[in-house]
Amino acid sequence: MALTESQQQEIEAARAAEGRTRRPVAPGLEALLFEALPVLDHGFVRVIDYMGDDAAVVQAARVSYGRGTRAANEDRGLIRYLMRHRHSTPFEMCEIKYHVKLPIFVARQWIRHRTANVNEYSARYSILDREFYIPEPQHLAAQSSSNRQGRGAVLEGAEAARVLDLLRQDAMATYDHYAWMLNEDEAGNPVEEGRQGLARELARMNLTLNTYTQWYWKTDLHNLFHFLSLRADSHAQYEIRAYAEAMLRTVEAWVPESFAAFRDYRMGAVTLSAGMLGIVRRLLAGETVAQAGSGLSKREWRELMAVLGRDPD
Amino acid sequence: MALTESQQQEIEAARAAEGRTRRPVAPGLEALLFEALPVLDHGFVRVIDYMGDDAAVVQAARVSYGRGTRAANEDRGLIRYLMRHRHSTPFEMCEIKYHVKLPIFVARQWIRHRTANVNEYSARYSILDREFYIPEPQHLAAQSSSNRQGRGAVLEGAEAARVLDLLRQDAMATYDHYAWMLNEDEAGNPVEEGRQGLARELARMNLTLNTYTQWYWKTDLHNLFHFLSLRADSHAQYEIRAYAEAMLRTVEAWVPESFAAFRDYRMGAVTLSAGMLGIVRRLLAGETVAQAGSGLSKREWRELMAVLGRDPD
Amino acid sequence: MALTESQQQEIEAARAAEGRTRRPVAPGLEALLFEALPVLDHGFVRVIDYMGDDAAVVQAARVSYGRGTRAANEDRGLIRYLMRHRHSTPFEMCEIKYHVKLPIFVARQWIRHRTANVNEYSARYSILDREFYIPEPQHLAAQSSSNRQGRGAVLEGAEAARVLDLLRQDAMATYDHYAWMLNEDEAGNPVEEGRQGLARELARMNLTLNTYTQWYWKTDLHNLFHFLSLRADSHAQYEIRAYAEAMLRTVEAWVPESFAAFRDYRMGAVTLSAGMLGIVRRLLAGETVAQAGSGLSKREWRELMAVLGRDPD
Amino acid sequence: MALTESQQQEIEAARAAEGRTRRPVAPGLEALLFEALPVLDHGFVRVIDYMGDDAAVVQAARVSYGRGTRAANEDRGLIRYLMRHRHSTPFEMCEIKYHVKLPIFVARQWIRHRTANVNEYSARYSILDREFYIPEPQHLAAQSSSNRQGRGAVLEGAEAARVLDLLRQDAMATYDHYAWMLNEDEAGNPVEEGRQGLARELARMNLTLNTYTQWYWKTDLHNLFHFLSLRADSHAQYEIRAYAEAMLRTVEAWVPESFAAFRDYRMGAVTLSAGMLGIVRRLLAGETVAQAGSGLSKREWRELMAVLGRDPD
Repeated sequence: MALTESQQQEIEAARAAEGRTRRPVAPGLEALLFEALPVLDHGFVRVIDYMGDDAAVVQAARVSYGRGTRAANEDRGLIRYLMRHRHSTPFEMCEIKYHVKLPIFVARQWIRHRTANVNEYSARYSILDREFYIPEPQHLAAQSSSNRQGRGAVLEGAEAARVLDLLRQDAMATYDHYAWMLNEDEAGNPVEEGRQGLARELARMNLTLNTYTQWYWKTDLHNLFHFLSLRADSHAQYEIRAYAEAMLRTVEAWVPESFAAFRDYRMGAVTLSAGMLGIVRRLLAGETVAQAGSGLSKREWRELMAVLGRDPD
Repeated sequence: MALTESQQQEIEAARAAEGRTRRPVAPGLEALLFEALPVLDHGFVRVIDYMGDDAAVVQAARVSYGRGTRAANEDRGLIRYLMRHRHSTPFEMCEIKYHVKLPIFVARQWIRHRTANVNEYSARYSILDREFYIPEPQHLAAQSSSNRQGRGAVLEGAEAARVLDLLRQDAMATYDHYAWMLNEDEAGNPVEEGRQGLARELARMNLTLNTYTQWYWKTDLHNLFHFLSLRADSHAQYEIRAYAEAMLRTVEAWVPESFAAFRDYRMGAVTLSAGMLGIVRRLLAGETVAQAGSGLSKREWRELMAVLGRDPD
Repeated sequence: MALTESQQQEIEAARAAEGRTRRPVAPGLEALLFEALPVLDHGFVRVIDYMGDDAAVVQAARVSYGRGTRAANEDRGLIRYLMRHRHSTPFEMCEIKYHVKLPIFVARQWIRHRTANVNEYSARYSILDREFYIPEPQHLAAQSSSNRQGRGAVLEGAEAARVLDLLRQDAMATYDHYAWMLNEDEAGNPVEEGRQGLARELARMNLTLNTYTQWYWKTDLHNLFHFLSLRADSHAQYEIRAYAEAMLRTVEAWVPESFAAFRDYRMGAVTLSAGMLGIVRRLLAGETVAQAGSGLSKREWRELMAVLGRDPD
Repeated sequence: MALTESQQQEIEAARAAEGRTRRPVAPGLEALLFEALPVLDHGFVRVIDYMGDDAAVVQAARVSYGRGTRAANEDRGLIRYLMRHRHSTPFEMCEIKYHVKLPIFVARQWIRHRTANVNEYSARYSILDREFYIPEPQHLAAQSSSNRQGRGAVLEGAEAARVLDLLRQDAMATYDHYAWMLNEDEAGNPVEEGRQGLARELARMNLTLNTYTQWYWKTDLHNLFHFLSLRADSHAQYEIRAYAEAMLRTVEAWVPESFAAFRDYRMGAVTLSAGMLGIVRRLLAGETVAQAGSGLSKREWRELMAVLGRDPD
């Protein structure tokens, strides 16, 4: 992660300033506020504002359920109940705002989560930094042969070296040409006297998808959990998962009870269809069940056996 | 507005407690926080949390526009520019949460604004309070004869008195029957021994639409401005406008620059079609234009003349 | 359900008219189009338009997954895979529009589903019909003693009779007073000469929550499935479930493969937390597990045993 | 636009097939259905499905406004009234689905419109085509010197030629390296025997932002109008405007009355703040007004004079 000195100073200044508020305060997150958590080679995630805490979830649930669910020692149980039964609206009462620096191809996956507010650095207006994502060697995976959308073994030897060379080389060459077309270097000086320079909104098209961009991204806790359940999952692409994992830390610091409930009931959870549940019941009753008589397709059978930790045969 | 003593104490306690935060603080809104602003006869609006301030709008706009729009004394101009040109995303970076007590028929209009988070008091779960909206005599308007959706003159004399009697009487009678069906009074005691009592989710259907409900309602500043532009408008029904007007006070306290821009560019603004603008230009050039040669329908012509403060003939 | 003769004729005319289209056609739903499926005593649901079919789901999934998943006989498997793994965007590519007549208290639950388009009959503008929901005797349930939000046994005898009398009587009395205040009967004639009549937007507040309203409601198939999974569920209030069940019929007629996948993987499905799954695995391995050593709370243990069809002790 | 022969045949087949439907049919759009309207050098927009027509807007408005606005010859006036007064919900009752081929940098602007459904071609799963956007010489504009976000004069001579060379060259080189990394050419054959090939989800990051992607994009008419009002506007970047302009043609064919109202009241419309309107009134009254005494900032004054077609001094 490459924060400039002036960015680092801004962060220090923001972290040093403290004010008084009547609002709920989440001490765990205050400690992390503004800090840039490094992700990938040049990226980061940092929380720049938040609203609410675990108690705000409880408070919202109680306005719905009214009198009768009051005891303070029941807060934890209530949060777990809400999570288990997917009562999502109380979690919407907390809000968080992140500043994120991320490669464009990651931003393209991320933006599909529509229930969020976004302000992205505009390359129509400004010049992007000369920073690209180049994977660590251990993340340079081959295409999976079984899963069209997954990664296989790590690339090795000459092939790996050549891939890294190409990524680095192409990113730099296209960036250099971008700057040439703009006729403006990173410091804002013309590259050559007397040229007009191409419009920024056009020149940016020459950049590769591993160029870093940045944005402010704001969402509520329910939608954040949804995002994290998809993106901190083992099926997510490693690069976005790296962001999701840094964000998990911030959520744990912010709303520890809600986070624990999320971890237990969402992250590690499995869903069984009625047919699958029927087979679990038969197995528990001591019956022997095979795929053939199960009513499940082969694929579903394999998925169920994997969930139950049993041999598919 | 009827806050119970225990609610009043809760509010006092919340207002007395102060913590330290690194987050942006809006001093004007801190002063109002948790306070119940009375609306109608038993309703209120109170801010219970917020995120961000005018500077957060500017900060978000600058991440988009990047380097180059930096001078601190330009913040006001930037906010006004964003509002004038309907750049809405920076305003989405501020969030506010209200606790509102309101008649059900007002809640039904309000809920049509979908981009918000809501937790409403559940009458499936709890018993509603014995409180109904009864208009002040000066708000007891006749049906407008010209506008199918508007109000005419204030009702007077025997008709007005009878209307108020009916509203009061029906609300109380249906509430009494609601409590009888539930076999539970407001204190939670059975009305008669030995009866089961109807399910709450059913009994509530006997209540009239002026019964008060309450909810937490959370939205971002852009969507709040949209809500206020429709609901603080003279075409809005008086009862929801009363809420919108109380909320305007909270927004002014929270984000004074954004509020001023909103007041100037949205609340008092008019939109002219291309055809209407053409006529304004012709009039400014000294031409005499009548509806007949204007290309506008009679209705559009009347609307334009009203905007320009001119006689339609 | 009370359709007026002219409504009935309109429906017949719409059903009789046929045009030619290049768009995908869902024959099962064409047969149901415009027909009013009766719900409760005066309500209905009818499909008035739709876009797409099962093939549109497949087509959208394939633009995402590109070349390689082509065989026509794999459509069913692909739809089931998408449903099982909660790939929701392909289901968003189908859209449906309903015309619904429903009691106001049901409309208030329904409207919480925000991702939909709604046009409701306006009681600011027009006069509501004299129609109220009065439950059938077998749906007149007592409050559940164990579940604050549920129904217990059916009310009987004098209590049931009195409840029905009150509901009917109050609805009619408040409606009569509504018409008196308006000074306008259902045919639009003044009740008494010489009175102005209260504005409609005010008079409506005297109506009870079982008064019928109507709306057009349009949503996509993914959000419809979400609505149905909550509202056709046994925990939903009977009255909204009655609507959801009528809508299930229309979905089955429209997109039979997607519907079958929804029924198998969503309606009958259960979700197990990581902790619950661990216990299932231990039970399958022949271990004896009790709540005490399970790591689950008593409530979670009871829920798990219920899912597995086992005695909690 | 480069449609493959098999795509062309698919389109022909879809256009040839016709079925019968009871749904509303929009004849103008039926004629255009499935046809690929060329945009930029390799892109296109084509309508692949729709729901509703002008009459559906009217129908939805009438369920809201109820009895009383019935005459068929008033449909046009009602649509214009709805548009003029920003009654948006009736326009939400129409839905349209496009298949779009577009450069990635255009897709990144487009996706900010969140109220839409999207299925994009997945480069995690499949291999992108070897197609890049290279601007026509007349669209190769210099950076505007007055507007940080705009275009100035057209680049000429050697600079223009060099820019085009660089764009072409870099796109091809990075694509070649992409294919090398994948070890798979466009036909799916390995480039070299014995290499594993980099995972698709990684290799794609080497592509430049002018590479073409494609998606299905579905939205309702209200949100489409919002999209078009921003993207068919002269301030929009030329490349996305080219798509918006092709889409205008489809909207005109689909809902001609709504389109005419949109063109009159939205596309050519201007909004005046209260302060600006005050000045227009003073000017109409024959007063001489200068910026100094206007209460407007210099920038606002210039904007107003431009709208009125007057000299700012």
